[in-house]
Amino acid sequence: MKAKRLTMKDIAQMAGVGKSTVSRYFNGGYVKEETRARIHKIIEENGYEPNVMAQIMKRKHSQLIGIITPALDSTTSSRMMMTMDEYLRGQKYTPLIINTNHNELRELMSIEQLRNLNVDGIILIATDLTMAHQKIISQIDIPFVVIGQRCKQGVAVVYDDYRAGYDLACYVAKKGHKDIAYVGVFQKDIAVGVERKQGVQDGLKAYGIDHYHFIETDFSFEKTRQVVGAFLDRHRPTAIICATDNLALACYKEIQIRGLKMPEDISLAGFGGYEISSLITPSLTTIRYENEEAACQGAKAMIDMIQEKDVESQHMVDYVLIEGGSISNLR
Amino acid sequence: MKAKRLTMKDIAQMAGVGKSTVSRYFNGGYVKEETRARIHKIIEENGYEPNVMAQIMKRKHSQLIGIITPALDSTTSSRMMMTMDEYLRGQKYTPLIINTNHNELRELMSIEQLRNLNVDGIILIATDLTMAHQKIISQIDIPFVVIGQRCKQGVAVVYDDYRAGYDLACYVAKKGHKDIAYVGVFQKDIAVGVERKQGVQDGLKAYGIDHYHFIETDFSFEKTRQVVGAFLDRHRPTAIICATDNLALACYKEIQIRGLKMPEDISLAGFGGYEISSLITPSLTTIRYENEEAACQGAKAMIDMIQEKDVESQHMVDYVLIEGGSISNLR
Repeated sequence: MKAKRLTMKDIAQMAGVGKSTVSRYFNGGYVKEETRARIHKIIEENGYEPNVMAQIMKRKHSQLIGIITPALDSTTSSRMMMTMDEYLRGQKYTPLIINTNHNELRELMSIEQLRNLNVDGIILIATDLTMAHQKIISQIDIPFVVIGQRCKQGVAVVYDDYRAGYDLACYVAKKGHKDIAYVGVFQKDIAVGVERKQGVQDGLKAYGIDHYHFIETDFSFEKTRQVVGAFLDRHRPTAIICATDNLALACYKEIQIRGLKMPEDISLAGFGGYEISSLITPSLTTIRYENEEAACQGAKAMIDMIQEKDVESQHMVDYVLIEGGSISNLR
Repeated sequence: MKAKRLTMKDIAQMAGVGKSTVSRYFNGGYVKEETRARIHKIIEENGYEPNVMAQIMKRKHSQLIGIITPALDSTTSSRMMMTMDEYLRGQKYTPLIINTNHNELRELMSIEQLRNLNVDGIILIATDLTMAHQKIISQIDIPFVVIGQRCKQGVAVVYDDYRAGYDLACYVAKKGHKDIAYVGVFQKDIAVGVERKQGVQDGLKAYGIDHYHFIETDFSFEKTRQVVGAFLDRHRPTAIICATDNLALACYKEIQIRGLKMPEDISLAGFGGYEISSLITPSLTTIRYENEEAACQGAKAMIDMIQEKDVESQHMVDYVLIEGGSISNLR
């Protein structure tokens, strides 16, 4: 028995995807491997002739790209958004930005809202990719790029947080520090809360340091001042490594108000390479991630996906260790 | 002769406004005085009975508010956007942000784009209100709020830039400084480029200082380092006043790399009150504008306009002079 001729809509329904995904499939554009296989199977079984449909179907572009950011006042996010904005505008797209203030629910809602505004694609500056995120990303029918966290379901631009953490910890340990505190964030942020921390831990271990003080905070300056201040009132390590430069600046303030000298009394290091980190005296030793490069790669991947070119599913972006004067040499 | 019964659309066309403006007129909502008079006149002359229409007409809200910002990496804009975002979300609105990177044409296009996305209102963080802006603002048929610049055609939240400039200049002059440089920006930014500068100039004059060095830059850190560096190679004033803290930080870097001490060799002051200004040593003397207050007032005015309450056309927001250690006392 020959199967009836299917419409694009039928295929989309049977495959559990949007019509535009089916369209991209026919046009040779970006479709996730698993989805591609599913559509292929449906067509195989039903004898559909795609070429005619492919010519009829023309997707209407809005020339809008949604960008979802966890904050509007973070140096890293701001840098990335400015770079993406210029890149995307150079390609005749207008970025529409939605801020979520680190709120997961808002993030999920924003994806829906942007989809309803008919954007041509969505870039998520991610801090926490939950199961709910992954489900939405695997189902969405427009190009989706994640920056800053690994994402099995889509295209992601990531930093090598583990190796950066490892390198910075080794650098500090090499200078002879043994009593070290690490100021980090919650584990649901996989990149910063888990990988970066694990890198630091393993780097210290490589130098025989099995014990370190772990101080957990969130990304805020004030909260960090409180928890680090309370810690410094009980104990003074020779060095503090912070998960971000912003946290390091909060520590710097607490060090200063206690009349301690940096790096003589206490050494300090961070991750971020913010401009301000080079303005304090002495300047901060920090890992500078190539945020602009990450933003460029993310924006380029988005345009490539819209233009239905082949796109690698994971892009790795580099970093450099900037030596400031904030780590004393105890050897 | 009795005029024919007009439709809402007719009135809108005759008045040169959108249908929703006419609707707000009938519902007693916010309509500019001049527009209100025009609509009133048309109705007077045509014997229209509004109450029926008012009941029929129901405007569909998108629950989206557009925010247009000149930058995503400016402390002031970031602060304001974060505050507005929280406030508007508290009122069940989602802010959609468009960045223009100080590009006037993009600003004008963004207004149009947001209008097409059916936002319920637009908030513009303004740096330069041209005739083209004023024309669009006077014609747009949804609530429009301007922050940071005066605006005759709509609702504006402004800082008293003249008085802030005057106060800071008096503070510096009182400390005995006579050889003073002012690092400012282009005049098309009326608030910063004209009013703030005029305030500084008049404040100095009040202390008998008729001559000062004017160094023009844009808002960028790098450009400012260049022009101030070139100036310092020719001449060393006893004090530099900068139009923003960001410009002051660029000066600070140039002062540092020349091996000069602050404030002994050279004093420095800015406008902005950024967190980082208190982290450098000594901390910067600066004018802290109440950006969060401005953002709150702007967001509140927007919600009030959407809810068709009375809104004042100009809101003035305060500032404080934060005394750091960056101005030496020469008396």
